[in-house]
Parts: sequence; structure tokens; C-alpha cells
Amino acid sequence: MPRRYLNLTPLPDALAAMRRAFPPLDHTETVPLRLAVGRVTAEPLYAEYSVPQADIATFDGYAVKSADTLGAQDQRPLPLGDCARINTGEILPPSFDAVVMVEDTWDEDGMPWIRKSAAPWQHVRHAGEDIRAGELVLPKGHQVRPFDTGALATYGITRVKVRSVRVGIIPTGSDLVPLGVVPAPGQTVETNTLMAEAYLTRMGATCRRYGIVPDDPDLIQRALEEAVAENDLVILSAGSSAGSRDYSSDVVGALGEIIFHGIAVRPGKPVLLARVEGKPVLGMPGYPVAAQTVLREVAGDLLRWWGLSPVRGEELDVRLSRKLASDLGFDEFIPVSVGRVDGTCWATPHPRGGGIQMAVVRANGYLHVPAGREGIGAGEEVRVRLTVPPERIARTLICTGVRYPALNELGNCLSDAGYLLHCCNASTMGAVLALRAKTCHAASVCIPEIGAAWNDLVLRYLPGVDLLRVQVARTELGIASSDALDASAVASLRFVNRPKGSAARVFLDAWLEEQGIDADRLAGYEHEVRTPGAVAAAVSNGFADAGVCPAAMAREAELWFTPLGYETCDLLIREELAGDEAVARLIQAARSPEFQEHLQSLKR
Amino acid sequence: MPRRYLNLTPLPDALAAMRRAFPPLDHTETVPLRLAVGRVTAEPLYAEYSVPQADIATFDGYAVKSADTLGAQDQRPLPLGDCARINTGEILPPSFDAVVMVEDTWDEDGMPWIRKSAAPWQHVRHAGEDIRAGELVLPKGHQVRPFDTGALATYGITRVKVRSVRVGIIPTGSDLVPLGVVPAPGQTVETNTLMAEAYLTRMGATCRRYGIVPDDPDLIQRALEEAVAENDLVILSAGSSAGSRDYSSDVVGALGEIIFHGIAVRPGKPVLLARVEGKPVLGMPGYPVAAQTVLREVAGDLLRWWGLSPVRGEELDVRLSRKLASDLGFDEFIPVSVGRVDGTCWATPHPRGGGIQMAVVRANGYLHVPAGREGIGAGEEVRVRLTVPPERIARTLICTGVRYPALNELGNCLSDAGYLLHCCNASTMGAVLALRAKTCHAASVCIPEIGAAWNDLVLRYLPGVDLLRVQVARTELGIASSDALDASAVASLRFVNRPKGSAARVFLDAWLEEQGIDADRLAGYEHEVRTPGAVAAAVSNGFADAGVCPAAMAREAELWFTPLGYETCDLLIREELAGDEAVARLIQAARSPEFQEHLQSLKR
Repeated sequence: MPRRYLNLTPLPDALAAMRRAFPPLDHTETVPLRLAVGRVTAEPLYAEYSVPQADIATFDGYAVKSADTLGAQDQRPLPLGDCARINTGEILPPSFDAVVMVEDTWDEDGMPWIRKSAAPWQHVRHAGEDIRAGELVLPKGHQVRPFDTGALATYGITRVKVRSVRVGIIPTGSDLVPLGVVPAPGQTVETNTLMAEAYLTRMGATCRRYGIVPDDPDLIQRALEEAVAENDLVILSAGSSAGSRDYSSDVVGALGEIIFHGIAVRPGKPVLLARVEGKPVLGMPGYPVAAQTVLREVAGDLLRWWGLSPVRGEELDVRLSRKLASDLGFDEFIPVSVGRVDGTCWATPHPRGGGIQMAVVRANGYLHVPAGREGIGAGEEVRVRLTVPPERIARTLICTGVRYPALNELGNCLSDAGYLLHCCNASTMGAVLALRAKTCHAASVCIPEIGAAWNDLVLRYLPGVDLLRVQVARTELGIASSDALDASAVASLRFVNRPKGSAARVFLDAWLEEQGIDADRLAGYEHEVRTPGAVAAAVSNGFADAGVCPAAMAREAELWFTPLGYETCDLLIREELAGDEAVARLIQAARSPEFQEHLQSLKR
Repeated sequence: MPRRYLNLTPLPDALAAMRRAFPPLDHTETVPLRLAVGRVTAEPLYAEYSVPQADIATFDGYAVKSADTLGAQDQRPLPLGDCARINTGEILPPSFDAVVMVEDTWDEDGMPWIRKSAAPWQHVRHAGEDIRAGELVLPKGHQVRPFDTGALATYGITRVKVRSVRVGIIPTGSDLVPLGVVPAPGQTVETNTLMAEAYLTRMGATCRRYGIVPDDPDLIQRALEEAVAENDLVILSAGSSAGSRDYSSDVVGALGEIIFHGIAVRPGKPVLLARVEGKPVLGMPGYPVAAQTVLREVAGDLLRWWGLSPVRGEELDVRLSRKLASDLGFDEFIPVSVGRVDGTCWATPHPRGGGIQMAVVRANGYLHVPAGREGIGAGEEVRVRLTVPPERIARTLICTGVRYPALNELGNCLSDAGYLLHCCNASTMGAVLALRAKTCHAASVCIPEIGAAWNDLVLRYLPGVDLLRVQVARTELGIASSDALDASAVASLRFVNRPKGSAARVFLDAWLEEQGIDADRLAGYEHEVRTPGAVAAAVSNGFADAGVCPAAMAREAELWFTPLGYETCDLLIREELAGDEAVARLIQAARSPEFQEHLQSLKR
């Protein structure tokens, strides 16, 4: 039976319905002070006693009665008759009301003498100066900071009643294997409950992860009943979609009342919220990036509503480096890398998709495109929420273009200097245009070493710009074929091709022209694949007879190889930005002996 | 033997000397993924395998060879001969190169039919789309975020090598008692190592707290030797000053080389840095606020230098609400409360002093006045570092003036609505002026119920301003005396007085006038004390014969009491700011039945 979402609820409506259905809990727990940091106080905390508990001396010297010292002058020194030796921090005896510093006295006739009268309460720290017994230390709803613990301990508070939410997280799916097991093809490591625990614990929730439950409605129901009994909120990971093996909505619907199923959010659409035994059960999609969105925007919102503390990054207004399409009617969340180039902060989007976890790992923030917007233009101002501390942005370098392995090593060199290299995927042309628009610090381009390619692809768009050019890789390209290539028989072969502008395509076109073959008549010429690996795979699996790919890939796939030429992968940096501290570091790293040695080692 | 600091090193010089003396460590430890959040990677992490490991279907349907489907049209449907049923997520068999969605087919003659050709690799997620085996996941020096754990687990990384710094923290002081013990007068609860652990652990350090060591050079030396052997950095809490019982510099000097002793920082001056067995030993002052400054500015800086991750609040540019004095030559750190009033962010300083921990607890940030500045004027723009998330500022309400207990209850009412009430100490006059300058949301004032006091103290400075006025307390004042007050003998009594502008002073002046007594000739009239409690204490301890204080205090001190009148404590809010969401909440809370009932209960 094919199932459907009843309807897609807009995100704001879904959150409002959730808040209506589940008013704040009043659950608390009492934790020792050491474990209170980051938790939210459930009641006001009052000082157990005054600090200081009594009047104390703030200098080493003598406790005196100030009235006895009246009239002491340079011309008329007085002896301190009724006095007591006192050290800093010691209690002032009740019969005295001032302290004279030892430096302001001298001994004569076995008595200390003074030349200056003491004001009442001079050099005395009054009882209760810091706090008085019973005074408020922390109000209700305060998130305890590390240094608050010192004050609480000083005031005699050793245990703290904090807000408590118990969250049970159940992973479901017959394809799941636990962390530490290498998944067979088609299996997935169970990671969503790990992320949920890491994220929600930092909001002050107490998380409990349950074992993996296979796709079986009875087993899911049993696990759910147990978790509902033991927790305040239950999260069911995966199975909330509408596929043939998605049992969450059936199971949850049988046990309780569904509040919404499916929200107009990307990624994160297949989310389910229900009330079971009066408690919220949240069905979370299995795709990890969709799960993150639901944890952040839905589960996080519920915990905030229940009085826990947000763990959200800061917001920053930036410009969008490229046009972004977005579906009207959907709230979209898009991972971006933010960097400041020549004084302007630019956000460059990473690929979207619930399964592309690396996009989130590579990003330092995300952009929320509200449902009412249909895409955003290049250069438009947008508000991004960061996933790193804002001060890190000034130390972030954006490299747009082709992601070459050598860039990892460059990133490591920069990391030693405290800088972060963010690589944002783009074609060579996209990278050159980003460098022209100054939306990146560096462009990573791949250029065929053929004819006027460099001029056509780079100089044409960056005329008169002084460029620092560092070669980070050089790759031999050629035709991989299932049999030895016979130029006279080429017209009868089925080819697989790469997109326009790619070096592989340029080499193929040049070679065809050289051979006098009409590209339009070549079988499969229009059959473009996205990666060089897909060329080798297509030939290897028999979908095509030939295609252009790197020599190393042809060798690995045990194909015949006909060399055509080299492509160079270069890092391009505008010299004019070298005054920027971060760019100077990038240039320094690119020219560093460590990095140059690494490049040499790649060539060996 | 009195000791002295050799000299006071300026803060920037001290930090530079520290960094020179202790280059970054290369210590690492390997932790399971769950414990890696917040830690900093010590080496790059690479994917163990590709994700997905093989090409997989992204829809339920049929695996096909795209070439077989060429030519299928509405007018010319084709049967799918060579095909295989496939579900979302399942592996595409190697002989196929596309997936046709089940919705785009129908069954006829026992075979699925199509009306549309399939493009190569349609509805297929390629092997390695998310990441390829051996590709970089996280660079070196990356602070692991909660959602990074999901990606790492997905890519087969279950343990992470992270940067490690072991910090040993030794509390010294014969006056110290451990947490949980009620200190006798003159004793102090040992809290500095608790704060150090809470703060430095959050930077990714591994902390070990040692037991309390009394002020005995031999015992301190033994503890220090043990801690140096077991850690990368040792912090000696207290004893780093130059007093007669401060042994840190002697002990440390005997074991190693002192790098600096005393830095030009307030609070935090008595800090000591030495090298013992090649490792840094940091002598930290015992006063808690001074200790916090040293942990943040010195220990924190060393850990950052060693590659751990900062836990610093965000910076915010604000205006200073009142003039602030500061000593030239000292870097000063001053706790402040920041709030946005009528569109402008204002920082109001709290009292300074190494022993006033409540100032830091009450504050939501701190102001760093560099050594080159001699004070800052009211209204000047300053940069504040927050100790709360910036988004909390919009929900912060600043109440300047007299801190009355009823304000705590008001704070609790506001906390339920998600707002934070910050009370900043000021005299009634200071509070009225803050309200006039719009540097606070509310002023808390105490006015004697006598003559034209209200007009003189409030209306004169806020003419024509519509004020919401909520009485939060009412106190009976009168003369507390050691014997029954005989009006005819008053001239012979020794008085203790309160400052000008205080209600107690106004009442005393009025009474003296009524009695025909010349204030100038009254003994002790010029003897001012800061708190009403100090009046009662002075009379009770025999330093004075009489003074004005609240009835309750006189009663508690078992003194005679001659009533003079009442003072009212009022909360004043500008009605014109009621459009501000936070102020509206404040007004709502002040008028709420809960708060009004609380006020009634105080009167009962």
C-alpha cells in the first residue's frame, strides 16, 4: 500500500502546533555543582551565609578604635594604646572599628605609633560586602557559567536544582549497523542517535540511546512503549517517511494521536510529531542532514520552549556569492562557508541533499531561505547562522573551485598557523568568476596544457590582475578504452564524455579534429558524466567503449590508455589582497617549504 | 622579611614572555567519538571508505540499461526487458546504469512498460557522492562540533586523536575548607580549583584537582613536584602575592626559574609564572575575581597558544552608562551588565574588587580598559566581551538603583517569560539620572515620605515624563539608640550618620531641626557609614550612641527605637518605552497578580 503525507505543514505552523500540544514541563533534577555548568536553574538560588561572614582586615597592621586616633598628625604622633595586631583576611575584633596599615606605624617604647588618624572602618571589609545571607545569587532560568560555580560554592551552595528533560532516542532500520562495524554495501552506520545525543545533551537534556530496532512494526511498537514510559520526549530515527518500509506513522498512529506528518522543510520533510501517553514522539528522517535540521529546528525548539538553553550559533549578515534556487512554499536550510574577502563577508553555498553530510562538515554556517522566497540572487544580503564562533570568520580562507587533494595539505599548513581553509566546489569557470567578483580568497582551477586555454579561461576574465599562481597538481589525461585504440575504427566506438569546459573534453575535441572525425557523428559524444571516475567506470562496465580520464584511473580500472596531454591544477590568488593578514598567510603557506615538498612528493 | 614584586610586567609583555618560554606542545590523546565533541583534532581525519560505497537507487523502481530505453515516447511505449526491481537505497547491479521510478511504469504482459527514455545514471546516487575513501573529512586543528560526530561515524572513524593538555591545579591556604564544609569566620571555601576546572575543561584541557595544601613551604613544594611530574601545566592557587604567608614565589623560585611575578592587571596583579622542569607553573591569586581574570587572560592565552579552542564570549560595541576611573599603566577588567534601551546598547559597570564575586555573577560581560587609558567617560563607545550568548541581550532588562529584595521576585516573574532582570547598584539620585539618560529600563529609588522629597528627587529631573511607578517596599525608619532617647540630652550623644541624599539623613535632619539642635555641633554627624546595617552595628558595638536605621534592624540588634517616618522604594519605568517588547514584559510583570501578591505578603 503506497502511503502519502496527509499534507505538508509549513514550519511555523508545525512549531506552533507543537508548542500548543506540549506546554513546558516542570521536571527538575538536583545535580552537584561540578555538573551544573551549562544547565538551567529550576529555582532561584540564595546565599547560605554572608561573605565575608564578619568584618575583616584588608591589610596587615593593627586593629584600632578610630576615635582613639583622632588628632594624630605629623607634628603630633600618637601611640596606639588599645590595639591588636591583625593580618589581611583576619577578623576585626568587635571592639575595634578600623585598621592601621603596618607601613603607617613605627615602634617606640614597645608601642606602635602613628602620625595620621584612622577613619572609621578604614581598611575593613564589612561582613556581607560580597553577599548577605539569604540574598539572591542566581535567578530561576539562568544557564550556569563556569565562573558561577565559584560564587555558588563560596556562598555554600553545593547542589543545584536544574531543569531536566529526558530524551529517549530509538534508531530504526534493518539496514543499520552500530558504530564500529564496517557497513556492507547497502548498510548504513547508525549515527543519528549519536548526533542527537551530542546536540541535545549540550542543550541540557538527559539523553538515552536505545538499541537498533529493525523495520518491524511490532518491534518498533515495543521499543516505543518502553521509551515513552522512561522519557519526556521520544525521538524515532528513520521510518517517518512514506515509503513501503516506513512504519513510524502506523505504529505511532496506533498508539496515540498524530499532530503533523510531513513539514514543508528541506531537508527534513518526512518529520512526524505525535502525542503518545501525553508525551511527544518525534519521527525524524534517516538521512543525516535532514535529521540535523529536525534536531535543530524542531526538537531544539521544543526544548527551548520547555526552558532549556539554546545552543545556536550567532547570526551574521553577509552577501551570497552565487545565485541560489529555492522552492516557493518550503523553508530551506543550506550549508554555506562564510569568509571575509577584501572587507566583505560572502557566503558560498555547499551542495544540498539529505545524504551529503560532508557539505555540513565543510560549512561554517547555514542559510535559512524562508518558504516565501523563491531563490536568492548573487550578491544579495542574507542572514547566516554560524556553526563556529564568529571570531573564526576572520581566520577563514575561502578557496572556490576544483577540490584537489593537495588542498588538504595546504589546509594543514594553514591550520598550524591558526587559519582555516574552506574549499567550495565550483567548475574552473565558476572559480575564475568568483575570483573576479572577489567572493573567494583563492580559486582552484584545472586548465588543459593546450593551445590558448590559459588565456581563454583565466586571462580573459581577469585582465590586468596580478595573480599568484601555484601549481598544486598535474594530471596526465588520455583515452581509456576497453580494447587497444585503433584510430581508423574510432567512428564505430561508443564514447562517454565529460562536460563542456572540462580539460578532458578539450583534449577529446582536439584529438577528434586531429583525426578528422566529426564529433557530431561520434556515438555517445553527448553522453556526459560528472566525474572522471564515472568515465572509467562506464568503460569498465561496458556501457561505453572509450572516454577521456586520468592515466591513473585507466590504469586502476585495467583499461587501455592512449595519452593525450596534461592538465594543470593551479591555485590562483590576487596579489593585491596580500595586505590582508589571512591572504598573506595563505600565500606564505602556498610558498612554504612544507607545502612545496608535499607537492614534489606527489610528483614522485 | 617583607617581600616585594620585582616589578609589574605589562599584560602584553607578560603574555609574549609566556609564549616565548613555552612553545606549543604536541601532546595528543585518542578519544572515542562521543567524547570528541568540543575537542580539537590533532591530525587530519580521512574517510575509511566511500559513502555511498556503491551506486544506489534514489527511488523505488526498476534498474535498467539507459541505452535500452532510447526512443520510448508517449506514442511509442517500450517494454523493459532486461531490468531488475530495485528499492530506494539498494545497490544498482553493475550491468545497469539508470533507475526508472515505479510511478513511471505500468505492467502489461507480465512486463513493466515505459513511455519515456531513461537518461544515463538517472535516479542513481553514485558511489562516493558524499565522500570517497581516503578523502579528507576534518583538517588538523578543527574543534569537533556535535553534528561532525555523525559524519565521522558514517565514514568509519570511531576514535579521534585530539590535542591534549593536562592541567594540575593545587589549592593552597591554611584558611581553606573544601566544598561542602561551612566555613568558620575567617575561613574560605576552596572554590578556585573548581572554577579553573570548569573553565579550562571547556577549552579542551584535562584537569586534575589536588587536595588543599596548608601554608607550609615544604608541603607546597612536595605537592608542586608531584603535580609538575604529572601534568603539562600546573596552577598554584593563592600564595602568589607578596604577603608574609605567600610562599609560592619562594617555593617556585627554588625549584625553577621565575619568568614574571606581578603583572599590571586589575584584578589579578599577584600572578606568578615560572618554569619548573621545563613546564609552566602559574601562581594564581586567591581572590576569586582575580583568579578568574588570570584563568581567562593568562592560562586561557597559553592554552590557545598551545592549540586548544577558545571559550570566549562574543564582543559587542556599546556605550558606557557612567564614568569609569581606571589607573594608567594597568589593564583593568570590569564586570558590566549590558542592555539595549530605546535602541542603544549600554554597559553599566558593577563594583570592582577581587573579592566581589557577585559582581561577576550579576554581570553579562566585562570591559577591558587597556593600560594606556585613564578612565572612560559616560556615553563613550566601548567594546565589551559578553559572558552570555549575544541573543540574550535583547531579553535583558537593566534596573539601576537600590537593590531591594522584592526585585528578586520581579526577576523570577520575568524569568518565567524568558527575560532577565539585571540590577545595577546606584543611589536614588544615580538611578533617577540613569532613567533620565535612558541608560536603564527601570530605576529603583528610595524616597523618604516627607515634604517635597518626591518632587525634589524625581520630578525635578524627569519633568513631563510619564512614569509607571510601582511601590516595591516601604520601610519604617527611626533612631536606634543604646539607651532610651532623651531629646533634651541629644546634644551629648555620639551619632553615626548616613550619606547625603539618603532617606535616613533626610529624616535625621528634619528631626534635629524640629528639636532645635544644630547638626554641626552634633558629635559624629560627619561620621558616615555606607549601609543601614553599619549604623545598627556601630550603635550595638558602642562606637556610637545613636543613628537612623530601619525599625527591623534596630529590633534585631535589641536597640531602643524612636520612629521618625517611612521611606518608600519604588520602581520607575518610562511609559513611553512600553512599545519595547522587553519593557512591556517588565511592566506586565510589575503589574502581575503574582508580583503584587508577593508585595502584599511582604507587608503582612
